[in-house]
Amino acid sequence: MSAAHVTGGADMQTLELSKAFTLIEPGPVVLVTTHDGHVPNIMTISWTMVMDFTPVFAITTGAWNHSFAALSKRRECVLAIPTVDLLDTVVGIGTCSGRDTDKFSRFGLTAMPGKSVKAPLIKECLANIECTVADIIDRHGIVVLEAVAAHIDPERRERRTVHAVGDGTFIVDGRKFDRRTMMASKLPPGV
Amino acid sequence: MSAAHVTGGADMQTLELSKAFTLIEPGPVVLVTTHDGHVPNIMTISWTMVMDFTPVFAITTGAWNHSFAALSKRRECVLAIPTVDLLDTVVGIGTCSGRDTDKFSRFGLTAMPGKSVKAPLIKECLANIECTVADIIDRHGIVVLEAVAAHIDPERRERRTVHAVGDGTFIVDGRKFDRRTMMASKLPPGV
Repeated sequence: MSAAHVTGGADMQTLELSKAFTLIEPGPVVLVTTHDGHVPNIMTISWTMVMDFTPVFAITTGAWNHSFAALSKRRECVLAIPTVDLLDTVVGIGTCSGRDTDKFSRFGLTAMPGKSVKAPLIKECLANIECTVADIIDRHGIVVLEAVAAHIDPERRERRTVHAVGDGTFIVDGRKFDRRTMMASKLPPGV
Repeated sequence: MSAAHVTGGADMQTLELSKAFTLIEPGPVVLVTTHDGHVPNIMTISWTMVMDFTPVFAITTGAWNHSFAALSKRRECVLAIPTVDLLDTVVGIGTCSGRDTDKFSRFGLTAMPGKSVKAPLIKECLANIECTVADIIDRHGIVVLEAVAAHIDPERRERRTVHAVGDGTFIVDGRKFDRRTMMASKLPPGV
């Protein structure tokens, strides 16, 4: 990885934390980066949930993922939001292990420093949410995350995310419908 | 509600439990039905997560939802999967309360008896998953659900689900991509 890569960041702009949940709520596949103090890693996760607008998120993972050791020890990660042009990268990351693979190098991804956590942002993604681990519910494999900073690439042309079906197929974002008026009474402030 | 309505069911066919998680994994908005022993109710939920293929799901809810009392007392519910033709129904259900509204009647939905739980299926939805409550994690408002039966309407023409963004807009399913071959090593049996 070149120095130019790790010192990038001009393409990501700060996203208000009050809007960060809108990146996860639609249920896209996400990339979760961690850093164990020596090397960064990435895993592909589809099992995510918004838990609060502040925002708080849950992900389901466990010791079967190599990233889990870094996540539980360092208690921080980044949720990076890939788009459909990265689908094969997303699937590739999900089908190899950080145990024996430098995934940033293998998939040509650029690690960028975050503001608040050591886990890297992924420059090629649409957005990145820096999170700290608020709780780990061991009996269910649920990791509760609190976002501490968020970034979005406002210039990125491809913005459609992908949704894993779980059978090896993926659904891309289609048309958008606006129901803001009907939902006005239910929307949180700052969204 | 007419007798014909509540004794329906011909349109729903049994779906193998091993496939039921594929209805939730893409992250669609779902309708959650409950029954408090007297009347059924429906809530709109976007905060869901698959936790296991068996399948096990999480939803985030709490006492702020009228349905929560029935859910926590009766310890069962149905996750019904609406499609884009029901978008205004989904938003309508999410912006009124079972406290003062019979939502089946108000939105012209048909309650059908399930196989294993008293909470009703919704005939107009693409699919219905009958669930029992396995755990409630009070400090996070997480309800852990185990599916006990699933049903799908194989004849339904509109099958595109909707994803809430959280800002009052909704994204409809678009194109589907097949990565079954790449993912073969990671797919659970029976999917």
